[in-house]
Amino acid sequence: MRVNAKRIEKDIEQINKFNSTPNSGITRLTFTKGYMGALDYIFKELEKVGAEIRVMRGGNIRARLKGSIKDAPSVMIGSHIDSVFQGGKFDGVVGTVTSLEVIRTIYENNICHRNPIDFVVFVEEDGSRFSSVLLGSKIWAGKIKDEELHKIIDKEGISYIEAMNKSGLVPQCESFLESKKIKAMIEPHIEQSLVLESKGLSIGIVETIAGIKQLEVAVHGVSNHAGATPMNLRNDALCGVAEIILNSEKIASEKGTSVATVGLVDVNPGKTNIIPGKVKFTLDIRDKDDVTLNEIVDKIIGLIDSTCKNRSLSYTIKQVSYTKPVILSKKIVKLIENVAKNQGVASLKMVSGAVHDSSVIAELGDTGMIFVPSKKGRSHCPEEDTDLKDIEIAANILLECVIELSK
Amino acid sequence: MRVNAKRIEKDIEQINKFNSTPNSGITRLTFTKGYMGALDYIFKELEKVGAEIRVMRGGNIRARLKGSIKDAPSVMIGSHIDSVFQGGKFDGVVGTVTSLEVIRTIYENNICHRNPIDFVVFVEEDGSRFSSVLLGSKIWAGKIKDEELHKIIDKEGISYIEAMNKSGLVPQCESFLESKKIKAMIEPHIEQSLVLESKGLSIGIVETIAGIKQLEVAVHGVSNHAGATPMNLRNDALCGVAEIILNSEKIASEKGTSVATVGLVDVNPGKTNIIPGKVKFTLDIRDKDDVTLNEIVDKIIGLIDSTCKNRSLSYTIKQVSYTKPVILSKKIVKLIENVAKNQGVASLKMVSGAVHDSSVIAELGDTGMIFVPSKKGRSHCPEEDTDLKDIEIAANILLECVIELSK
Repeated sequence: MRVNAKRIEKDIEQINKFNSTPNSGITRLTFTKGYMGALDYIFKELEKVGAEIRVMRGGNIRARLKGSIKDAPSVMIGSHIDSVFQGGKFDGVVGTVTSLEVIRTIYENNICHRNPIDFVVFVEEDGSRFSSVLLGSKIWAGKIKDEELHKIIDKEGISYIEAMNKSGLVPQCESFLESKKIKAMIEPHIEQSLVLESKGLSIGIVETIAGIKQLEVAVHGVSNHAGATPMNLRNDALCGVAEIILNSEKIASEKGTSVATVGLVDVNPGKTNIIPGKVKFTLDIRDKDDVTLNEIVDKIIGLIDSTCKNRSLSYTIKQVSYTKPVILSKKIVKLIENVAKNQGVASLKMVSGAVHDSSVIAELGDTGMIFVPSKKGRSHCPEEDTDLKDIEIAANILLECVIELSK
Repeated sequence: MRVNAKRIEKDIEQINKFNSTPNSGITRLTFTKGYMGALDYIFKELEKVGAEIRVMRGGNIRARLKGSIKDAPSVMIGSHIDSVFQGGKFDGVVGTVTSLEVIRTIYENNICHRNPIDFVVFVEEDGSRFSSVLLGSKIWAGKIKDEELHKIIDKEGISYIEAMNKSGLVPQCESFLESKKIKAMIEPHIEQSLVLESKGLSIGIVETIAGIKQLEVAVHGVSNHAGATPMNLRNDALCGVAEIILNSEKIASEKGTSVATVGLVDVNPGKTNIIPGKVKFTLDIRDKDDVTLNEIVDKIIGLIDSTCKNRSLSYTIKQVSYTKPVILSKKIVKLIENVAKNQGVASLKMVSGAVHDSSVIAELGDTGMIFVPSKKGRSHCPEEDTDLKDIEIAANILLECVIELSK
């Protein structure tokens, strides 16, 4: 029994017809017309297999193939269909279409299963509309209080609740996703990196979702005339920041498992002929291990301090976010690994540097992720690409895992 | 015979009453109401001494104390009164008020002079309205062709000619400033740097106005997920640029006389969690010697090339401007030096890293500049400051130089 790659290909094509930036990648923001169009397509496919579709708390979708044991905890599969602004065709979609195809295959082959199999679509994973990632899974899992939820608005001031109701996704069930309801969760996803491609592998098995600390740093020097001020009498904030960027790269590289990224630099006053007096920048630091993550962050903070002292600059550091690493279920990792092996597929156990809804679900039940390669590692951009062959391999592994977990 | 510091103080105060950003430094853009208000104040002062005021080509002002020899070349003194946006009280103004006081002192003391003494106000030195520095002196010197002049517009689309005519500054004389009309020119100005202050000196004598090359550089890497992409698989354009910034600082510092500044950095896409794929930045490189300037520029271009090669980045470099160094008159330097010595003032021969109208006039006749210290080197900002005592010293030296040159 194998999945049908042709159908997966068609699903990807059909979902990506719903796109508000047709000539510049894919934009499909939560609760918009495009989002609802893609969801309608998915609903029609699910209706063909008799899945019971329900709108859950926060507008998350659950489509259930009932199991033979009433009220048994479910095996969840799925991902998300919202995108970043001008993103690609595969982020979220790969997990959605492989899960959809698994549901169809199980139905068509009359596979007996004791546990319910739930196909899920989480809302607002990428945070592109409401500026908060993993929002749907967090709402469903009860990690967002009602009072907070009512305050969440998009850039036009439209509230999450208003946008959800307007889209027609009125929750039919307001109960929280609880541990006792979940037997397992597996989310296939594109890797969004170069590791699998560089090793020539089709499948990655996520053991850990990295922890993240994000800092906002401001370095203050003295803004002076670029022509009139000799090099030895300068307090150039940008030269200090350049030193910090280079040494942060070095500190993260030495550790091997860590990453540190300066993604945004704001130079003030930002004129060709004026020495920068103030430079703000962001730091995004990640590691699979919480102790290492904090060690790296401390080292980089020490670096900022010593660099500024040496250059007579001052600085402020603000911690913007801190998410601890999430260790996924060893049981699920083992299962995926064995299934891949049985199917003759070489796999790699790896860390996910990006966060996923699985980070939230992992706190409730046994959760795993299957990664497929991203060509050149490109993601969240129009160039995002993954071979259909790899997506098919992931779907077949997911199929066997789901049968095993629900039987 | 000495100048009157009280009057200089009053002039500075009166001119700076004309300011379109009263709570944020001084903004007095060319041909605006504030500009004309300041000019009116100056005209009234000049009328008291019977100076013949004429609006020259391009709206530049010349106020003449006639000499005893008809048609002799003139001794020019003066500077500008336009400012940068939210600048300080002293840039341009110091040269204007010291020259004005010298004119008054010569008149009041009935000093005989054979050559005419011309007090000048150059238009649009700072380029803040029409985006081109030294515009007034260049127009007057015939370095801007009529067809070019007619195309010059401000940010609102108002042409230079239209703004000039509307201000009431209709030229009474359209002839060019020529070599044969100039015996000498001396422009006092704030140093806009820290050198004089750091050496505890009141007077600098400019020997050379530094040459400038300005480059716009774009470095292209690969924009990827900041969490998912291991450090060793990155092509981070910003890390490459950080290396270039640091080593440019080193190259310029090693030479001693050169300066190199990165004043503007534009990071794309500029998101906390995305590795920068494209970074644009500016380079402003200056030296008093043209050969050294080009050597430094070549070294920095070599650095950009090698850094990008090592990091598998690509780049483009565009030369935005190139102004060769201007050597000021050795005769005038010597004169200022001797006068300062006679008056018991220690002085320093130095390079001006900033350009001035004197760069333009130096091509036509013997030109010199007297610098006064800028507190903490601050300039083009509200914190710009210079001691009245130092301004008085400069005015007394200027007075004696003018008497010597025109006698």
